[in-house]
Amino acid sequence: MSKTINVAILGASGYTGAELVRLLLRHPNLRIAALSADSKAGRAMADVFPQFAGVDLPVLQKIEEIDLDGIDAVFGALPHGTTQDVISDLLARKPDLKIVDLSADFRLADLDAYAEWYGHPHKAPELQTEAVYGLVEVHREKIRGARLVANPGCYTTTAELPLIALLEAGAIDADEIVIDAKTGMTGAGRAAKEGMLFSEVSEGIHAYGVGQHRHMAELDQEFSAAAGREVKASFTPHLAPMNRGIYATIYVRAAGSVDAAGMHGILADRYAGEPFVTVLPLGQVPQSRHVRGSNMVQIGVVADRRPGRAIVISTLDNLVKGASGQAVQNMNLILGLPETTGLEQGALFP
Amino acid sequence: MSKTINVAILGASGYTGAELVRLLLRHPNLRIAALSADSKAGRAMADVFPQFAGVDLPVLQKIEEIDLDGIDAVFGALPHGTTQDVISDLLARKPDLKIVDLSADFRLADLDAYAEWYGHPHKAPELQTEAVYGLVEVHREKIRGARLVANPGCYTTTAELPLIALLEAGAIDADEIVIDAKTGMTGAGRAAKEGMLFSEVSEGIHAYGVGQHRHMAELDQEFSAAAGREVKASFTPHLAPMNRGIYATIYVRAAGSVDAAGMHGILADRYAGEPFVTVLPLGQVPQSRHVRGSNMVQIGVVADRRPGRAIVISTLDNLVKGASGQAVQNMNLILGLPETTGLEQGALFP
Amino acid sequence: MSKTINVAILGASGYTGAELVRLLLRHPNLRIAALSADSKAGRAMADVFPQFAGVDLPVLQKIEEIDLDGIDAVFGALPHGTTQDVISDLLARKPDLKIVDLSADFRLADLDAYAEWYGHPHKAPELQTEAVYGLVEVHREKIRGARLVANPGCYTTTAELPLIALLEAGAIDADEIVIDAKTGMTGAGRAAKEGMLFSEVSEGIHAYGVGQHRHMAELDQEFSAAAGREVKASFTPHLAPMNRGIYATIYVRAAGSVDAAGMHGILADRYAGEPFVTVLPLGQVPQSRHVRGSNMVQIGVVADRRPGRAIVISTLDNLVKGASGQAVQNMNLILGLPETTGLEQGALFP
Amino acid sequence: MSKTINVAILGASGYTGAELVRLLLRHPNLRIAALSADSKAGRAMADVFPQFAGVDLPVLQKIEEIDLDGIDAVFGALPHGTTQDVISDLLARKPDLKIVDLSADFRLADLDAYAEWYGHPHKAPELQTEAVYGLVEVHREKIRGARLVANPGCYTTTAELPLIALLEAGAIDADEIVIDAKTGMTGAGRAAKEGMLFSEVSEGIHAYGVGQHRHMAELDQEFSAAAGREVKASFTPHLAPMNRGIYATIYVRAAGSVDAAGMHGILADRYAGEPFVTVLPLGQVPQSRHVRGSNMVQIGVVADRRPGRAIVISTLDNLVKGASGQAVQNMNLILGLPETTGLEQGALFP
Repeated sequence: MSKTINVAILGASGYTGAELVRLLLRHPNLRIAALSADSKAGRAMADVFPQFAGVDLPVLQKIEEIDLDGIDAVFGALPHGTTQDVISDLLARKPDLKIVDLSADFRLADLDAYAEWYGHPHKAPELQTEAVYGLVEVHREKIRGARLVANPGCYTTTAELPLIALLEAGAIDADEIVIDAKTGMTGAGRAAKEGMLFSEVSEGIHAYGVGQHRHMAELDQEFSAAAGREVKASFTPHLAPMNRGIYATIYVRAAGSVDAAGMHGILADRYAGEPFVTVLPLGQVPQSRHVRGSNMVQIGVVADRRPGRAIVISTLDNLVKGASGQAVQNMNLILGLPETTGLEQGALFP
Repeated sequence: MSKTINVAILGASGYTGAELVRLLLRHPNLRIAALSADSKAGRAMADVFPQFAGVDLPVLQKIEEIDLDGIDAVFGALPHGTTQDVISDLLARKPDLKIVDLSADFRLADLDAYAEWYGHPHKAPELQTEAVYGLVEVHREKIRGARLVANPGCYTTTAELPLIALLEAGAIDADEIVIDAKTGMTGAGRAAKEGMLFSEVSEGIHAYGVGQHRHMAELDQEFSAAAGREVKASFTPHLAPMNRGIYATIYVRAAGSVDAAGMHGILADRYAGEPFVTVLPLGQVPQSRHVRGSNMVQIGVVADRRPGRAIVISTLDNLVKGASGQAVQNMNLILGLPETTGLEQGALFP
Repeated sequence: MSKTINVAILGASGYTGAELVRLLLRHPNLRIAALSADSKAGRAMADVFPQFAGVDLPVLQKIEEIDLDGIDAVFGALPHGTTQDVISDLLARKPDLKIVDLSADFRLADLDAYAEWYGHPHKAPELQTEAVYGLVEVHREKIRGARLVANPGCYTTTAELPLIALLEAGAIDADEIVIDAKTGMTGAGRAAKEGMLFSEVSEGIHAYGVGQHRHMAELDQEFSAAAGREVKASFTPHLAPMNRGIYATIYVRAAGSVDAAGMHGILADRYAGEPFVTVLPLGQVPQSRHVRGSNMVQIGVVADRRPGRAIVISTLDNLVKGASGQAVQNMNLILGLPETTGLEQGALFP
Repeated sequence: MSKTINVAILGASGYTGAELVRLLLRHPNLRIAALSADSKAGRAMADVFPQFAGVDLPVLQKIEEIDLDGIDAVFGALPHGTTQDVISDLLARKPDLKIVDLSADFRLADLDAYAEWYGHPHKAPELQTEAVYGLVEVHREKIRGARLVANPGCYTTTAELPLIALLEAGAIDADEIVIDAKTGMTGAGRAAKEGMLFSEVSEGIHAYGVGQHRHMAELDQEFSAAAGREVKASFTPHLAPMNRGIYATIYVRAAGSVDAAGMHGILADRYAGEPFVTVLPLGQVPQSRHVRGSNMVQIGVVADRRPGRAIVISTLDNLVKGASGQAVQNMNLILGLPETTGLEQGALFP
């Protein structure tokens, strides 16, 4: 494969932007042609992320300064809410751009759901309709032909991979799903907030957004589609004192006579051929650190001591499979490249 | 109050032993008269725990070297399984000793349950029958007259304080309790194991003992007593990269027409006069770091978005209210001292 | 001792302010009568620092709202630069206030040095002249009669305690002092800055302020006084991924024939009677975690393999002996209370 | 380049062994043909390091079980002391093996120095004489023709890269070098020791091996060679609560009229063409986290406020450039492969 695709990364001064740069520097086909970072425009990338000292990269620009003539594809790593205007504008100027957007802006197919959860009508409803939800292992075929892919959230990818498979198989009671999720601090982004200071979050753990987190809209959409009826799971996110990792401990009740071994079999079969999903042997429990820095998901299934119940555990790196890695995976699909290109790197443990 | 009680701490070279020393050094009535640590006998406490450099403390001894004549009360901070023999022997030699035992050995009133969970018959069944389960806020009156108190586990204290109150009030469905608990590393003790090395447990999180943790026996006992029928909760512990803290996120379903506000009211009423339990305003979520180093428990209640369900969160310091602090609280009760003596210290945050 | 002193804490929403509250809640003579926090005025302390939930404390006020009639003494925990105006004003309104100021504003006796290091003339030069530098173990007698005490910095306290003793004894070459210091993150305060986010500072270490840190002015002042001539040490601070602790590794060269054992003897003699300074046996190395949460300093001396050189290591908790604990110690001295009152708490380890 | 070299990794159950596996899985020419781990022989690599779940790797074997016929090259990642016997035996059985040894066993060319620091005569003196010290940027040409390369230590690589260049240039006083080094916990290996437990080493920092660390022998050897006379530097290692990273803060005094800018120029020139060494602009300070997971070294130079002195800071990842990465770099050189093969991965930050 020798074609070179020129790529712009919007929002390169954030963590998912930097992670895209890290991954693309080892991608043989995608060439970083432009990097945007509004408030830090004019600075070198190595000034904002010193791990890139000595690496040849474009200077940070404002989005409007990017020359679209030289750009074939775009990764959007901008904050939620601001992205829909930017993407609309880019596609108006250059309709054949290929875009993978990492924000939440294009994830909800239902415009009413969007308005309800985000408090305002969607600003680019026709693009919203066009956008494909980029959970690769579930929507791979739709992604191949897409122009605009909405990269799923990190929490949602973690929970959806096991649960969509189980719901589609009719193996679990859709009304009895409890997702207790733990995330590392990079999930909160790089904006300076008191609550994210080292001294506020180290040496302790806490839940947040209890009962009402926006990721629920995304879960509702995908779980309902998988079950063929409306599903509302219970979802509680926690902040753990670590940089990377999402760890979802999921409590499910069997539908019918399926037991934990049956659920494990469904997952093992479903993901047998997937390069980025490992289903561990029945009873084995994953650890978030063992996928750190890689695009891997590890899933474990354990029987509860109460008959008819099981605990399903899923973990990934929120910046890789939960964001930038899955975005590259989506872009590979869009462009017809082998899906794993640039994502071969194993986990960094310890 | 001017009486002085001479105390021996068995197992002073472990974390709960050191925590007892820390607390007792500020206790006006309890005087540390002997410290045992079998494999480190003969060494100074400051050699094993350098935070005590310059503090006047007894040299570490073997248990059999302790002169019981000078001892009025004993804290047992020995490993599970070895304690029952030691305590039997001590009480045989000096029947009027007052003992608070921090191990799991005397927690299960049902000798069959003990044998089932621990794989061997109890070695001191008559003492087991005598022992009082020392969850102070629930069993206070029984503790006052006791000679031998079994100090509850750290996980169990965290989960039992909110759940016993809700079960006794008939506010929740006893068959639908899911406890997702996270602990700091000191809960695993000081024995050198590969899995507890810094590099193995930092920068990540993972569940362990999934589906089958021994703490379940203790939960079963107390929840069943509170509900008046057999209760088996789902309980999953996790190791988080922090030293101290237990954080239990508990998913409950209302029984009858009680909602989250009703549950909150039950807890707020129940613990209104308790010096070591704070029920936060409805909807507010605690953080484990805000009870670090103190004997406090913080409890929060939040409504789930699904009607009839709520999330109850409870947190404490596993070495204090989850172990050594509650042990001092129990000893104060046994001895007729004000319950809060020596436990007034606030949390160390940040 | 039964007298009660009414105290105001200015800047109670910062870490040193919260630490003062923690300490004073166990102080039998100092009563917290007012808490100021300009941007958070009107809020409850427990809202800003949830570890105080359930504790009876004054509501946060603006400084100008504090009724000075009810105040006997003040702790200033405000940012550097703003303090000198505030203290001037308070003393103008109530000249008999006793003040311990934790900022850097009154630490430099030399007004020219202040102007040089801080880039502007001092705004309260007469108070600067009056202020006593509150390194208790060195300037205890001057502090007793003082109205305004400048509490030393955390880095400087750590380095000055061993070095002033060695310089006064003429034991080391004043031109060959290298101080390599490591601090926990709370030393950087609670203001939200990108560089202090968990993800920016965990899992790594780095130096900052290399060659030019403002603490050097304070070191110069005290070291020169101790040596009787101008001294400029080399000082390099580092940020380590931990909440609390200063750890100074100090490289010295002997003056004359003193060796490491001789230096150790000087320090051991000098601090033999001090309640808050422990000089470890020769060759033994302290750890910052063993003084966490306490007002203790631990000092170790080790011979270098090169004759005539030694490594002196000093460690303390930057929020206690490095700030709020030493401030209480100073206030006790000013008020004629026993110096250790309210500071008896041992270290919290692990 | 299409040749495939079959490689054995001895000691694959330790951290440097796992890191070799991680790196070699992306190396196009080196194929992992055998993995040894004596006490864990017979287990799958994924059982010992779950990040390799789903990766096709040889089962762990005892060393003597490895069929040398299929092996072209060996990485030794065994503990110090045991390696010299093992390597002797391997080379006796198959003299044309290419070996890079990561232990300290073959690093000291002077057999007397070895005996003095390690307390026993070297067991393979003729191999010791043959072995080349594998600090690539300094000894590249000698490594090319070598059969046995002694991979340098992590601390020593960090300090030697800047200091050898400055000593060779005669820019610094060889008698006035102070190296204050901080390491992450993986440097202590995976053996279960109380002192390496999470709760013992998190939330704090401490020095160890003060005045007498074995790495000094290696520093002496290389510094003396660079200076052309005997050099003994002062070196103090510290354990910081992080997994990876060595951070050396080095205090130097200029020889003659060279100032910090001059030193910076020497380093910048010396390492201008090196793919794995970045000299930052004068006055800029590196952070260990910005080289995490990569084979990079970052070096900074800052002028001290005292004329004629400077602070030189050097940082690398102890498991990559400080161990397994440099080992691959050495093997590439031995085998005539491009030196950077398999080492192109950028740092993982955050």
